[in-house]
Amino acid sequence: MKSVVVRNIKRAEADVVKRLGALGTSTVHEAYGRSGLMKPYLRPVWAGGEAAGTAVTVLAQPGDNWMIHVGVEQCKPGDILVVGCTTDNTDGMFGDLLATSLKARGVVGLIIDAGCRDVKSLREMGFPVWSKAISAKGTVKATPGAVNVPVVCAGVNVQPGDVVVADDDGVVVVRRKDAGDVAAKGEKRRADEEGKRQILASGVLGLDMYKMREPLAKAGLVYIDEPESD
Amino acid sequence: MKSVVVRNIKRAEADVVKRLGALGTSTVHEAYGRSGLMKPYLRPVWAGGEAAGTAVTVLAQPGDNWMIHVGVEQCKPGDILVVGCTTDNTDGMFGDLLATSLKARGVVGLIIDAGCRDVKSLREMGFPVWSKAISAKGTVKATPGAVNVPVVCAGVNVQPGDVVVADDDGVVVVRRKDAGDVAAKGEKRRADEEGKRQILASGVLGLDMYKMREPLAKAGLVYIDEPESD
Amino acid sequence: MKSVVVRNIKRAEADVVKRLGALGTSTVHEAYGRSGLMKPYLRPVWAGGEAAGTAVTVLAQPGDNWMIHVGVEQCKPGDILVVGCTTDNTDGMFGDLLATSLKARGVVGLIIDAGCRDVKSLREMGFPVWSKAISAKGTVKATPGAVNVPVVCAGVNVQPGDVVVADDDGVVVVRRKDAGDVAAKGEKRRADEEGKRQILASGVLGLDMYKMREPLAKAGLVYIDEPESD
Amino acid sequence: MKSVVVRNIKRAEADVVKRLGALGTSTVHEAYGRSGLMKPYLRPVWAGGEAAGTAVTVLAQPGDNWMIHVGVEQCKPGDILVVGCTTDNTDGMFGDLLATSLKARGVVGLIIDAGCRDVKSLREMGFPVWSKAISAKGTVKATPGAVNVPVVCAGVNVQPGDVVVADDDGVVVVRRKDAGDVAAKGEKRRADEEGKRQILASGVLGLDMYKMREPLAKAGLVYIDEPESD
Amino acid sequence: MKSVVVRNIKRAEADVVKRLGALGTSTVHEAYGRSGLMKPYLRPVWAGGEAAGTAVTVLAQPGDNWMIHVGVEQCKPGDILVVGCTTDNTDGMFGDLLATSLKARGVVGLIIDAGCRDVKSLREMGFPVWSKAISAKGTVKATPGAVNVPVVCAGVNVQPGDVVVADDDGVVVVRRKDAGDVAAKGEKRRADEEGKRQILASGVLGLDMYKMREPLAKAGLVYIDEPESD
Amino acid sequence: MKSVVVRNIKRAEADVVKRLGALGTSTVHEAYGRSGLMKPYLRPVWAGGEAAGTAVTVLAQPGDNWMIHVGVEQCKPGDILVVGCTTDNTDGMFGDLLATSLKARGVVGLIIDAGCRDVKSLREMGFPVWSKAISAKGTVKATPGAVNVPVVCAGVNVQPGDVVVADDDGVVVVRRKDAGDVAAKGEKRRADEEGKRQILASGVLGLDMYKMREPLAKAGLVYIDEPESD
Repeated sequence: MKSVVVRNIKRAEADVVKRLGALGTSTVHEAYGRSGLMKPYLRPVWAGGEAAGTAVTVLAQPGDNWMIHVGVEQCKPGDILVVGCTTDNTDGMFGDLLATSLKARGVVGLIIDAGCRDVKSLREMGFPVWSKAISAKGTVKATPGAVNVPVVCAGVNVQPGDVVVADDDGVVVVRRKDAGDVAAKGEKRRADEEGKRQILASGVLGLDMYKMREPLAKAGLVYIDEPESD
Repeated sequence: MKSVVVRNIKRAEADVVKRLGALGTSTVHEAYGRSGLMKPYLRPVWAGGEAAGTAVTVLAQPGDNWMIHVGVEQCKPGDILVVGCTTDNTDGMFGDLLATSLKARGVVGLIIDAGCRDVKSLREMGFPVWSKAISAKGTVKATPGAVNVPVVCAGVNVQPGDVVVADDDGVVVVRRKDAGDVAAKGEKRRADEEGKRQILASGVLGLDMYKMREPLAKAGLVYIDEPESD
Repeated sequence: MKSVVVRNIKRAEADVVKRLGALGTSTVHEAYGRSGLMKPYLRPVWAGGEAAGTAVTVLAQPGDNWMIHVGVEQCKPGDILVVGCTTDNTDGMFGDLLATSLKARGVVGLIIDAGCRDVKSLREMGFPVWSKAISAKGTVKATPGAVNVPVVCAGVNVQPGDVVVADDDGVVVVRRKDAGDVAAKGEKRRADEEGKRQILASGVLGLDMYKMREPLAKAGLVYIDEPESD
Repeated sequence: MKSVVVRNIKRAEADVVKRLGALGTSTVHEAYGRSGLMKPYLRPVWAGGEAAGTAVTVLAQPGDNWMIHVGVEQCKPGDILVVGCTTDNTDGMFGDLLATSLKARGVVGLIIDAGCRDVKSLREMGFPVWSKAISAKGTVKATPGAVNVPVVCAGVNVQPGDVVVADDDGVVVVRRKDAGDVAAKGEKRRADEEGKRQILASGVLGLDMYKMREPLAKAGLVYIDEPESD
Repeated sequence: MKSVVVRNIKRAEADVVKRLGALGTSTVHEAYGRSGLMKPYLRPVWAGGEAAGTAVTVLAQPGDNWMIHVGVEQCKPGDILVVGCTTDNTDGMFGDLLATSLKARGVVGLIIDAGCRDVKSLREMGFPVWSKAISAKGTVKATPGAVNVPVVCAGVNVQPGDVVVADDDGVVVVRRKDAGDVAAKGEKRRADEEGKRQILASGVLGLDMYKMREPLAKAGLVYIDEPESD
Repeated sequence: MKSVVVRNIKRAEADVVKRLGALGTSTVHEAYGRSGLMKPYLRPVWAGGEAAGTAVTVLAQPGDNWMIHVGVEQCKPGDILVVGCTTDNTDGMFGDLLATSLKARGVVGLIIDAGCRDVKSLREMGFPVWSKAISAKGTVKATPGAVNVPVVCAGVNVQPGDVVVADDDGVVVVRRKDAGDVAAKGEKRRADEEGKRQILASGVLGLDMYKMREPLAKAGLVYIDEPESD
């Protein structure tokens, strides 16, 4: 790893970010061929937060949040900060002072594969964070990492400028060049789902709506009545 | 495992289900001789939900929710769907479309030893789910499992028609044939506890109320004053 | 381990407990040289609770809450009960009856390196608990442990009479003899932070406010522009 | 849970146990329709051990090995002791004294959903154990459980008299009434595999031997050459 | 995710693979600026195995090893197969039949972010595997994934043709274009370490050899004698 | 936490260390009233190693092994180095160079609540290590910790000069002042166990040898014959 900060990254366009954010993580993930989803151990530190933005990436050292301070300077309005760590760590690398700074720059949220603190203040500020842990554990500023290099965060390789969508269901990442295509597919999927919801609410079974009976039988599924017993 | 759907299962009676639901998981579990409780990694996807119903069981394959669709058809009003998985899996096998379908059939909740998604919608719908994870991860419909066979879900062997009670404290399962007896014992226990609560609130110690001092002394417990130091 | 109850422990003074509680866990932990923090797997069973008190310690056996009953008697107003366990265990050792008893004695909260149940009632009572798990699992009263001996709870060695501060960010412990010093340092830190918050909110970068640019360059960090690609 | 010991259980026949043991866990699990397998957190405490026997089951309390002593008496030559626990626990419930006793009765191994100790002695005795943890943690003898009732052990519901096969790959359980059928299917599978092994060793691809190319193409798989880059 | 197989990937040169393999994972990881290391949950299924090769990558679905069969065909002598999974899974996706096939093609090992079975046979064959779990759990062949696309495996983004080095200490990945540079740095490091080992073995302290005393004092470290007590 | 090195600690006497080492962890832990045992996630990095020594303690920062280098200087022949960490961390803080240095000073082993690397070399050197993880992950030397202060390591509070005994069953710690008493009790226990082993080997049941039948009956255990079924 080189200790480097990459400036002037290319970002996905704001319009497509907005469209993806409106779809939510599940629909975006499905529209992206069921890919791009971070591991489910990443959870919102307060329920109900939602964010969609362009990734500025940070690679941090365990127990050391120096690079997050460096990353803040590279952020622009509409960005979302994505912090990977060189090793598993749950320390509270991020708190309300950093959130204040990010908010001042127009950043819409934080994704961190480590710990977060000051949860009460973050909720009051309305600044959404998805993290691996909540911990008051303090950190040092001793060893450089990198900013705006590709980082693996919660199992997903994130590149600077990618679109990140996050909500109660998790966090999904879409490559910048794929964003428009995924947004279009996702919007189609959402429209389809709305129709399906109404059909299912009327009592029609998914077995019939999706025409599953024949393939299930082919796959060997059989129906029997409960044997007498008890 | 045979790919089979068992129809026409026997269910515990609605009246006893209601009585057990009114007691809550802790009381039911205690009244059942401290058994029937699922492992605590199963958590409500939104806080405050409560459900009690008769089990329709599904055995699903990892990353595959085909059998849940099959299971829906076997549900009747007052049922609760219980989904075990042939191996550890956290994928989002269940979301708001399936919840819509279950609601249309009068199902009161879902217990799933895997992941769940669309948490925000589920909360808005008031449909309670207890799961191992929250994840937007999509699933396939490729390999059959089974419906209404005994399944191990979060460490408990669940049989179709058993009573399932779930709340913020977890999920407990009572065999159909034991349900009436457990309800009676639980109601007695609840009445006893109300009396104990008032006694304890008045400042009487549990040590005295439960007459623990003598058995503690017999077991070797001794009292000393703090030695001088510091 | 001897089965012993130590009476008449020395406690930190109420005034300093109050001052530490007003600072919150993150500030106290930082002011204490980044020490005293319990592991982050300990979480509040309901969000938003806060507590600060003097530790009465219990060492319990797995699946056995007998010693908690013994510990209640040693509690005074302003105490916080801290329960360690001789081995990893998630059973619901604590519920609303014990909380009723503790409340009657003026105890302000519970920290338990095991499970807790009756979460709904605890929230309604406003009694805050930090635990490793939520579980309805019942326990026995069969084997003595100890009360008011030093216990390791969630990775921290707690001594009777220590100050315990807990909130949404976790739980921190301060030795009785260090409490006054830590409170003073924490109050200074809080005042400093308020100034920093305003500077950061105005858009000044942490890089500049903390004068990090020179040490970062010395540590080898370099800035480059994104190479052409894509 | 009732504190009960069931005597005179029916056991699978020794001959079919031997045949299943000769097949090993993977083949037995496959022949059983991919079922019956315990979770992979259960590991041999020393490598290379193998065992096949009829299950005598124990349901133990956390940190309490009293019921294992009770279970020993119910064992006959060719049995394997299977210990479930009413809650997650890693204490060293089993050691070389109990192993000496089991060996004296002709028991062929132990499966325990908790901890084990005296690993060095067990290896020297050649007594194989599969456990969730290795731990010197001592236990009490205070609370009864049950013997020869169905127990869930590492995710599998085990009934007394079932066949248990264990080796380096894990532990698999076959219902007594299914044992003969599974042995026959497993022997056929093993013969088939031997032929396949020789074909694959000769360089023939599984893609061709299993005729996968057509179904893969139907499922949408496409082949491309690596795009020019770098 | 597109269901695609990329053919004719570029591979790192055999000579540099050999040099990196001779260095071992710790030295390679250090020489690579402390990067490229997979998470430590990936462990050898038998101790003492070592492998170095060029990566052929597979992205598999949970509980489904179809894509591994597809990946085999893309392997050449000196390759190492690297299997990522679209979600956390511990099923036994790989066993001795696939190992036989890989061996026939000159593949030197397997890295799999899932489970492995037939451990005894693999050890006897001398075929080294690093996996997340050992499990006899069988898998289906139902849903395509991809071959020779970048995959995240145990926290590292692996690209086809990268160099993979694995031993008892774990698994490290070096980009194809960086391999020569890392090998040269690693060889220099190894030579340096040999000298250091001899100095330390003679009793010289690391504190002196690395000249740490001054920076430690600057960082605030102080020496005191143990206070009288006890 | 103060960055301090405490020199000239008091150590338990060599003779009692030797006696405790001869007893092994299980016997020492039992003789110590079932206390002093580290959590079972601490495992030997190679099987069969055994060590007993006096504790020199190190408190390290995550991903930073600077303090281990400082700790080496405080070691004398017969010591065992015990490394706690200010937060959960699995990085390879210790390897063969440090082991060479410790061996040169007569240190008999290492206990580390973090990661270890160079496992193959350590086994060849015969230097035993108990760690939380095996990982090639490199560390920095940037932030001081402390040496010879009390540290919590794997759940146990260790004080400098305490006796540490470690083998395949885990790691146990005995306070310096308790060591002689525990050794004497352990030796008595060992003698008793030898007698019990012979009785059990002869076929006498533990139920009879320990006279458990009456207390079991009192505790409510009943014996029944298997009901007719199947």
